[in-house]
Parts: sequence; structure tokens; C-alpha cells
Amino acid sequence: MSVLIVGSTALDSIKTPRAENPRLLGGSASHAAVAASFFGPVNLVGVVGEDFPRRYLALYRRHGIDLTGLQVKPGKTFHWAGEYELNMDHRRTLRTELGVFETFSPDLPAAYRRSPFVLLANIAPKLQAHVLDQMSKPRFVVADTMDLWLNVALDDLLALLKRVDAFVLNESEAQHLTEKDNLFDAARAIHQLGPRYVIIKKGQHGSFLSAPGGLFLAPAYPLRTVVDPTGAGDSFVGGLVGYLASRGGTIEQNLRRAIIYGSVVASFCCQGFGVTRTARVKRADIEQRVREMEKLARF
Amino acid sequence: MSVLIVGSTALDSIKTPRAENPRLLGGSASHAAVAASFFGPVNLVGVVGEDFPRRYLALYRRHGIDLTGLQVKPGKTFHWAGEYELNMDHRRTLRTELGVFETFSPDLPAAYRRSPFVLLANIAPKLQAHVLDQMSKPRFVVADTMDLWLNVALDDLLALLKRVDAFVLNESEAQHLTEKDNLFDAARAIHQLGPRYVIIKKGQHGSFLSAPGGLFLAPAYPLRTVVDPTGAGDSFVGGLVGYLASRGGTIEQNLRRAIIYGSVVASFCCQGFGVTRTARVKRADIEQRVREMEKLARF
Repeated sequence: MSVLIVGSTALDSIKTPRAENPRLLGGSASHAAVAASFFGPVNLVGVVGEDFPRRYLALYRRHGIDLTGLQVKPGKTFHWAGEYELNMDHRRTLRTELGVFETFSPDLPAAYRRSPFVLLANIAPKLQAHVLDQMSKPRFVVADTMDLWLNVALDDLLALLKRVDAFVLNESEAQHLTEKDNLFDAARAIHQLGPRYVIIKKGQHGSFLSAPGGLFLAPAYPLRTVVDPTGAGDSFVGGLVGYLASRGGTIEQNLRRAIIYGSVVASFCCQGFGVTRTARVKRADIEQRVREMEKLARF
Repeated sequence: MSVLIVGSTALDSIKTPRAENPRLLGGSASHAAVAASFFGPVNLVGVVGEDFPRRYLALYRRHGIDLTGLQVKPGKTFHWAGEYELNMDHRRTLRTELGVFETFSPDLPAAYRRSPFVLLANIAPKLQAHVLDQMSKPRFVVADTMDLWLNVALDDLLALLKRVDAFVLNESEAQHLTEKDNLFDAARAIHQLGPRYVIIKKGQHGSFLSAPGGLFLAPAYPLRTVVDPTGAGDSFVGGLVGYLASRGGTIEQNLRRAIIYGSVVASFCCQGFGVTRTARVKRADIEQRVREMEKLARF
């Protein structure tokens, strides 16, 4: 089944201690869409400016990503520039130029409104809600977020949470949102805000799913070196939702493996700048790492 | 098969934001011996002073721990006093009185010298080596350590590592010892120092085994509240070695589950001061949590 992915489509200029790469394909929806594309059809909703390189449109298309919902507007594409410290744990924003993203309204083509699987990748919660306003009974809605929205749009986020099936956030965001130090308590508090499924990302330490069927402690695919972690979280949710949409059976039956698939796609993302590594992935590469994960985790 | 455990036997006075408990049964060998006792016979080597409470000797005996190797010397028992911060991640030593431990020499009763499984719980590496000097071809030797020895007895520790099968240490110790940030690289560097098996503890994030048969990413048993983490690492290795000694088959076949059992015993340790919670555990409680771990980790 197809997945609708809405979020930011951007150009990222990324500096690490080892290299500097200007104007990479970036944005939450770009990473998530490429990640989801390995599992089935993806419909992308986003906005880019007239400066958006054709090669990136070609890249989306090569991945079978439908671009009917990608708006091309007069002006510049959203541009983010950031720099990572040596251990890749901390990044600092050098520049944010919103460009056409400043007035982005995610309007869905008619054909997208019945998508069964919806990923509200990281953008303002008000825009995420606007997507749901246009949908007709989606089967499964996943929302991602970032710390910024907890600070500047908390009420919008809380309103959104009542309308999503699964909410994905990282450990510090979960602690910030709930004021609970312990992840169980944090997950429980988030369930009370709406979502049946809460997925808390712990970076290299894996992730934590709290679901009606119980808890799942998922390992992360272990990497020896991280080239650029930008987009890893977006790739994680993209792979997760893409895998879910590709499977028969219930969400509960598939969600644990979906998390593992998400973690594997995220691992590829970290091994190159922007989507450069992810874009070279074959489905067989993903299956290979999933098998490795099975070996790493079995006891 | 029986397990020989050598380490510190102490009295711990522990302060947390919630409570204060003086003169608890503590020390690396005490925690490890109680943890190992759930799986089979344990021979304990340590030293206590004349002030050592009889009730603690009774506690060891109730757990079937053989005390032939426990020296009782004129003077005071090793006493450690420490305080934890609110999140239990950081502790600070308030007082260390070595007492009879200052001149401790771990001399093995003849009957202990053929123990197939040896746990060198955390004490000075020179004393750990002295234990091995007295042993006749043990089947499996595990050594634990702490950051202190990396700083003050590194050469002794490096000499010891050539003689042990498995080395257990925590993440920051592994990084400190090897100057490698990444755990794979750290583990590889530690293999080159001697041990075939390297187990890196990551606290609430579980642990990491590097073995000839591959890597294992072990989750930690998740706890909602930690009462007192003192001795959790000792309980982990104690449970691990106790379980290993109780099983037929090869080390490689059993080590992953041994790590899970160690993690479960450590979880009980964290739920009470000193060994108070661990000492009330029944084998069935351990099996129950191991089954929970299987559910938490399967995908």
C-alpha cells in the first residue's frame, strides 16, 4: 500500500570535522521518502524553490517517489547549514534560510487523500494537522517532531497528538515533553496525550516502543563510523512506515520488525552525507543488515 | 559446577536522595556471590574484620556460599560511604576506610584451587593475578575492574588481561583504556590485550559482547525506579558466571543467555539497598524476568 509523506524538502550544507558538503538533498520528507521507497510506492508532499537542482528531482523519481504533491514555487528552496562536533553527538546550526518553506501549506492532491499510511515527518505541528484535515480515514498515522516545536508550538503539538496513532520522538524530547526522567513513565504520559504507539529514539542505543501489546527494546544497527547523522531520525520513521505499509497483518504484528527495518535504513543514512549512501542502497542490502540484527540480538 | 569468587567484602553506607542506609552488606565479592548463588555452589574468598555482623555471615550461608575462604582478621571491615545524586547516574565517595582490606591477600583454600569457573570481582589487579597464580587450569576466568585501576595500576591490569578469558568493564572504562570512542574499536583493542570475550556494560542501555562467534547487543532489564545501583555491575558478573557454571555445553553457546541472566540479577540489585532485594530473590523470579526479556527483545 502507498505511503503519504509530508515534511520539509530542503538543501543542507553540512560540515563535519572530516568534510564539508554544500547543498545536499535534505529535509525530513526527503530522507523519509527515500527510506520508505525501498518498500513500496511513496507520495511526497513538500515545497521547493526554482533553484532546486533537477538531479534531486531525478533522484526522487528513480526511487519511484510520486511528485504530484511536490510544489515548485518562485523563490529559494529551504536551506539549512550546520556543523557537527567530533563525536557527532552535537550539532550547531550555522544558518537557516526558510525561502519558499516559510509560506508552505501542505495541500494534498486528490489522489493522496485516501492514502492508508501517513507519515507526518518533522514540520510545524499546525502543518501536520492541516494534512490530517484533508485525509479521509487513514489507517495509520505516524507523526515525528523535534525539540523546536515543544518550545514554540506546544499547544499545536498537543492538539495533533490526539489525532495520530503513533508518535516518534527522541529521548530528550520525551523527557522534555512529559517532565519524566524515566522512559516508561514518559511513554505512559504520552499515551495519555493520545497516541496508542509511542516510539522513543535513543540514537546509538536503539529505540523503545510502548504499545498495547507490550514494550519492545530495539537495538540500533551498530556502526563503526558515522559520516553524517543528519536525517537518520527521518530515515528511521520513513523506513518504519514504508515497511509497515508493505505488510499484511495488523500493525501490532509488524511494528517491531518495522522498527528494525527503520533502524537499518537509518544506519545507511549515517554512512554518507545527506542521502548519498541511502540512495545507493538495494533492498537486498537492507535484508542483509536485518539478518545481522537478528544475529546481534538473539539469545 | 562451582564458582570461585574473589573480591572485596565490605560494609557500605549509602545515601540517596530518598534514604540513608548505614553498614549494609557490600563489596564486589558479596554482590557477585549472592548473584551467582541462585545458579549453583559458590566459594567466596575475601576478608572481613571482627566487627563484621553475624547476620551477614548468616546471609552468605543461607545462599549456600562456602566461607572457607573468607578470612576474619583482627581490625575493622572495609567500609565505604557514598552518596548518589537524584538521577542515580553519579555517585560521590564520602569516605573509604580500608581496615583489614588494606593488607588483604587472597589465599585460596586447597579445595578452591581446582574451581573450573573463576570470577575475579573488582579488586586490585595484582590481587586478581595472585588468585590465578594459585589456580590449576581453570576452565573459564572472568575479570571485572573499575576506573581506579586504570589510573593507578594499569601495568598490573594489562598483565592480568593476558591471563583471563573474559574481561568485563563499563563503557567509559573501555574508552579510557583503549582511547577508542567507538565500542567496536574499543572491544577489538581489548581483544588484542588478551581476552577472547569482551563485555562492555552500558548501564540502562544494556551491554555489548564481542566474542569469536560474533557480537551480541544485550538489552538491560528495564526498571521504572532505581533504589540503589551500588553493586549492580558486581551482580551482573556474578549472575553471568553463576549461570555459565550451571550449564552444559560451550561457553559460546551459553554466554548470551548468561548476560541476560546477569542483567536480570542486576535489576533486582538496583531495586533495594545493598543486597537487600537480591537476597529475597527466588530462582523463579529470575526466570520470570528472563521470560519478560525474551518478550521485550523479540522481533
